Amino acid sequence: MPLICQAGAPQRTAEPGALHKLRATPKTVHWGYFDAALSPALKVKSGDLVQAEAVTHHAGDAPDLMMDEGVTAIFEGVPESDRNPGVHIMTGPIWIEDAAPGDMLEVRYLAMTPRNPYGSNLAANWGYLYKEFGEKERVTIYQLDAAANTAHALYAYDFPGVYLTPGTITHCPVCDRQPALKGVRVPARPHLGTAGVAPDVLGRVSTIPPGVHGGNIDNWRIGAGAVMYYPVQVAGALFSIGDPHVSQGDGELSGTAIESSLNCLFQVIVRKDFSFPSPLLETPNWWIVHGFDEDLNVAMRAASLDMLDLLTEHRGLSRNDAYSLMSVAADFGVTQVVDGRQGVHVRIPRTIFGHEGE
Amino acid sequence: MPLICQAGAPQRTAEPGALHKLRATPKTVHWGYFDAALSPALKVKSGDLVQAEAVTHHAGDAPDLMMDEGVTAIFEGVPESDRNPGVHIMTGPIWIEDAAPGDMLEVRYLAMTPRNPYGSNLAANWGYLYKEFGEKERVTIYQLDAAANTAHALYAYDFPGVYLTPGTITHCPVCDRQPALKGVRVPARPHLGTAGVAPDVLGRVSTIPPGVHGGNIDNWRIGAGAVMYYPVQVAGALFSIGDPHVSQGDGELSGTAIESSLNCLFQVIVRKDFSFPSPLLETPNWWIVHGFDEDLNVAMRAASLDMLDLLTEHRGLSRNDAYSLMSVAADFGVTQVVDGRQGVHVRIPRTIFGHEGE
Repeated sequence: MPLICQAGAPQRTAEPGALHKLRATPKTVHWGYFDAALSPALKVKSGDLVQAEAVTHHAGDAPDLMMDEGVTAIFEGVPESDRNPGVHIMTGPIWIEDAAPGDMLEVRYLAMTPRNPYGSNLAANWGYLYKEFGEKERVTIYQLDAAANTAHALYAYDFPGVYLTPGTITHCPVCDRQPALKGVRVPARPHLGTAGVAPDVLGRVSTIPPGVHGGNIDNWRIGAGAVMYYPVQVAGALFSIGDPHVSQGDGELSGTAIESSLNCLFQVIVRKDFSFPSPLLETPNWWIVHGFDEDLNVAMRAASLDMLDLLTEHRGLSRNDAYSLMSVAADFGVTQVVDGRQGVHVRIPRTIFGHEGE
Repeated sequence: MPLICQAGAPQRTAEPGALHKLRATPKTVHWGYFDAALSPALKVKSGDLVQAEAVTHHAGDAPDLMMDEGVTAIFEGVPESDRNPGVHIMTGPIWIEDAAPGDMLEVRYLAMTPRNPYGSNLAANWGYLYKEFGEKERVTIYQLDAAANTAHALYAYDFPGVYLTPGTITHCPVCDRQPALKGVRVPARPHLGTAGVAPDVLGRVSTIPPGVHGGNIDNWRIGAGAVMYYPVQVAGALFSIGDPHVSQGDGELSGTAIESSLNCLFQVIVRKDFSFPSPLLETPNWWIVHGFDEDLNVAMRAASLDMLDLLTEHRGLSRNDAYSLMSVAADFGVTQVVDGRQGVHVRIPRTIFGHEGE
């Protein structure tokens, strides 16, 4: 019985191998897509550490605050015509030696550090309440307070026109900056909105819909201290990171989080001792399973069935026991609600297991 | 601007008035329904404390463990023909002096103590994965460990036939008792699955679908330390409690929680200084708003709009600010997923407000 987190797999205790650094540059990013045909930006071995830059595609919402020289180089170096069919700037791909289809890629996220203390939330045309807000888009710029681990709004402005081009740069005159959210401080939850392995598909795959490969899962729990398990689709896995957020609620209601560039330290480990049908998340307190669909009802069912799979195949529970346990101890949450991509996740506490000896 | 939790309403600091005790007996319960025409089981004043018994309608799943003399009296004293159209044993109603339609009934839940250390989870015919489990129903009996604040399975059995009659008593021979969930301990979350005021409707209203009046909300956060605000529908409010649970996950997947009788201490306060369109929950850390519908998508939208109402009408945020805040800091969860009644709730942390002076 392969227990994901307790198996005798030697990788679990393997010390880190080499440390690699991966800057985000026009040559090491792919904007808006995964593609199994991409040449690796970096080649590593299982167990290696990677320090990589994840750059937000919303840096242009406050260019004076969020665009340094390196970010500007990406926005200038990747033409608009090459940013599709999705929207996210992805750093990578990283080729991991020995990773093969059928394996799981374990990614231990160790640190996520803001590149600058600013982030942007867009009430977007793809947001949940776009119609209720008169089809108006609005940007709220947040500042991070590292000491308090919170974010607070600096200013806001109505976006002129419709936000259609990824990486739009908006020079908002100081006179257009309206005060916002006075007295409110939001807990910081730095995480990656989008990360994953290359799908086994010919050509570009949009970064927008999440799927088996990972992608735009938008679960704020994918931060430092969390471990993700991605089902490897192609040789070398071709793992990429992007869409960094400094905070987000379950649901990501307006269509975006506090979008903010992050520098990320993580360890990649090839796992050949188990498989799982969808991206699996382990945090210090929870195991978390995801379901995705255009319909929230269908996403909910997918998440429930994959949690059943986790509890039976990987925790050794009978189906009957697993069903009862899910009803009394598993918490279902709405990860995102955007037309065409709804996400549901389900969390089961890790501490409920392992009491056999009592 | 009426701030629900910070208004200068004198009730907020009112010390408790009288303490009333309300035992659950055939004469003080109504099984399966709310009814505005019911005579009060108890009359109290705003600010009074009530110590009341909430009895689970699933006590018959383990009669030797969960049915004492008082519970047996209810099961024997309320004929099956009088248990409809819902299923829950409701204690009350409690008439609160001066409560009138348009007011909010604030109920501060202070203590919830198990009546006995046992509970039942039924994988029910109305459960989410009923078809996936071959249309079989199964009971898992849990034992509570008060010292550890956990529950663990004692035994399980397949339910013979279809569980259709509320209060079915099943004498499961010892030889039919199968071991279950070895080594698993579930965190205890004692709470009321169903509680609320009488709807302003002629005749019986089923306890099953939640609504503006409260009812079967099935949010496990409605436990000791939580405060609920119910929109009063009829004179005197006619508040009742029932459907006690000792633990449940968000989603209540199998159709039931760990159903277990609880003795509840709570304070009732009539609030005339604000109104809210749906049952509102305040915990030490969160404000929580609920949405209900047959379709999870519609419940989600209802919850999001009522949270927008909370943040604008009761916290004084602009609509633009509230929308951004919901996207970056509000967590949406699935409260229940039963055919015909889906529930979504959304939580916003209380600590994000009140930083004006910094």
